Amino acid sequence: MATESRRIVLARHCRGLPQPDDFRIEGFDCPDLKDGQVLVRNILLSVDPGTRARLSGKASYVPPLPLGGVVGAFSAGEVIESRSDKLPVGSVVTLADGWSEHAVLTVGRGFMRRIGDRRLPLRAWLGVLGVSGMTAWFGLNRVGEMKAGETVVVTSAAGAVGSAAAQIARVAGCRVIGVAGGPEKCAWLTGVARLDAAVDYKAVPDIGAALKDLAPKGVDILFDNVGNAMIDTVIPLMNVNGRIVVSGQMDAYNRDDEPGPGLVNTRAFITHRLKMQGLVVFDDLPQWGAAEAAMADHLVAGEIAWRDEVIDGLEATPAAFAGLFTGQNRGRRMIRLCPDPAGFPE
Amino acid sequence: MATESRRIVLARHCRGLPQPDDFRIEGFDCPDLKDGQVLVRNILLSVDPGTRARLSGKASYVPPLPLGGVVGAFSAGEVIESRSDKLPVGSVVTLADGWSEHAVLTVGRGFMRRIGDRRLPLRAWLGVLGVSGMTAWFGLNRVGEMKAGETVVVTSAAGAVGSAAAQIARVAGCRVIGVAGGPEKCAWLTGVARLDAAVDYKAVPDIGAALKDLAPKGVDILFDNVGNAMIDTVIPLMNVNGRIVVSGQMDAYNRDDEPGPGLVNTRAFITHRLKMQGLVVFDDLPQWGAAEAAMADHLVAGEIAWRDEVIDGLEATPAAFAGLFTGQNRGRRMIRLCPDPAGFPE
Repeated sequence: MATESRRIVLARHCRGLPQPDDFRIEGFDCPDLKDGQVLVRNILLSVDPGTRARLSGKASYVPPLPLGGVVGAFSAGEVIESRSDKLPVGSVVTLADGWSEHAVLTVGRGFMRRIGDRRLPLRAWLGVLGVSGMTAWFGLNRVGEMKAGETVVVTSAAGAVGSAAAQIARVAGCRVIGVAGGPEKCAWLTGVARLDAAVDYKAVPDIGAALKDLAPKGVDILFDNVGNAMIDTVIPLMNVNGRIVVSGQMDAYNRDDEPGPGLVNTRAFITHRLKMQGLVVFDDLPQWGAAEAAMADHLVAGEIAWRDEVIDGLEATPAAFAGLFTGQNRGRRMIRLCPDPAGFPE
Repeated sequence: MATESRRIVLARHCRGLPQPDDFRIEGFDCPDLKDGQVLVRNILLSVDPGTRARLSGKASYVPPLPLGGVVGAFSAGEVIESRSDKLPVGSVVTLADGWSEHAVLTVGRGFMRRIGDRRLPLRAWLGVLGVSGMTAWFGLNRVGEMKAGETVVVTSAAGAVGSAAAQIARVAGCRVIGVAGGPEKCAWLTGVARLDAAVDYKAVPDIGAALKDLAPKGVDILFDNVGNAMIDTVIPLMNVNGRIVVSGQMDAYNRDDEPGPGLVNTRAFITHRLKMQGLVVFDDLPQWGAAEAAMADHLVAGEIAWRDEVIDGLEATPAAFAGLFTGQNRGRRMIRLCPDPAGFPE
């Protein structure tokens, strides 16, 4: 007998800032399982700014989501039916099937990771131990070639990826300066996340001058989540052989086809041998196991803090998403659909 | 007794396009040699667009040349007096002491390379086997991580660095498309340099569309000598994990402090995991020996062609330099002050 479920689909293409009524909830029946498939009941849904890129309906590097399509997202859930020996009922997984109460997945196809370590709450695996934390980890270690003693600037440093990156850099022995908007975020960065310094971009007249004072030995790595204007501001502070990790482009997500500011200070790519490189963290999937284990140890030891906001109920998802773009959130936003499975701490 | 000599100094800071009367010739007496020093009589002086960066008098990443300072340049010459066991009279060297008839150098300090291989004319060692060729070599191999079978676009492909890069890529088994201005340069690229294709940017209405037709499998490496606008044109054609080698910025050299066009298409740094990186070839100096030897073999075998223009007399230098910025030159420009030493072919 088919399982009844609900999911969130795109009702209207986003123009500029997403609005809650760009989305609607619809009911559906989960298809019966075939051999090798599992039925996952989602427990937590991730609410992630990167989702915005596909919602304008315009052709881009990522195919646009058609009207009526299920909005893509990561989630964490439990296998409640299984026709696969590899993933029995009761397995807890993270997956990327969208804002939906249930998902039918073929084991070994697409993104699905089993969570074996139950030392941390499930929501950690959707944020700091999930795509956000892995983007930070591989962005700094593979792309950024981070070394102890270097100076690292992280932008959107109070965000999900930024806060992970800033603390991964601190734990690695770097001097870390975070850029974020507002005194509350900056206080969290220096107080809880224990960065060396934080710059409130809303409060300082000149971000570059503020960073220069805080980075007397220059900047070796810029881990950027904002975009070209921010990168241009930091380039003049960068040391020879500096690396710019293009992790996100918050500034661009709402622009659709309108071009944003260009990157002007490119002469330093020659004079200072700069490297700028982006990443998509799924390229590093074969190395996730080791990175997750190292990160989980840091979390359990209390060396890396994280913030998340858990909001209850599928119905809350559209407004929670729209709020990301007006700076409402403090850390990774998630929607809780049901309680964590047994064995996970609060 | 002091050797009388002549050199070219900066008479007026350059504004926009360099003019011949931005420079003047002055006489000087070479200082007596100290222990460990040699006196080099220059044979060929290089005339290089990169020189422009220091001539505006404005502070930049490179310190500006003061009025009256000797204009920096590479040259090739012969040791005519020596107080160093390491470099006896008759040694032929390349050096970086400027537009001057003579230079006094301390062996082991600054840039000086002895040329042991006399299979090729001396002018090859100042161009395709000198800084230009090495920039092409390390730009493609170290920064660009070039692999056989890839598609490589080279801009300013008829220039000194570009023509070396384009042919190094061809010899490595890549599909190579050159961008250059005018039918004569493009005919040289496909006819003599044997590239797969050339785009005349002055003749096509849309460089990007022309390149797209010629690169049906996309572009893996952009080896750029032009600047942001050109890079923006090529980015939409780039494959996942594409590399942009920032070799030169011809477009920017005459801008002084005025900002040029910014790089807008940076979203592809994430979606396509692009890497953009610049180089200064002296970072690779420890590896030059092997690269020079490999390149020299290609030249002797006729697999890599080069063009240079040799103009006689120190007096011709300022006009030869100014002409670089109006597209007059066909390949590396050099000034000949005296004939090649014995043993070098014509």
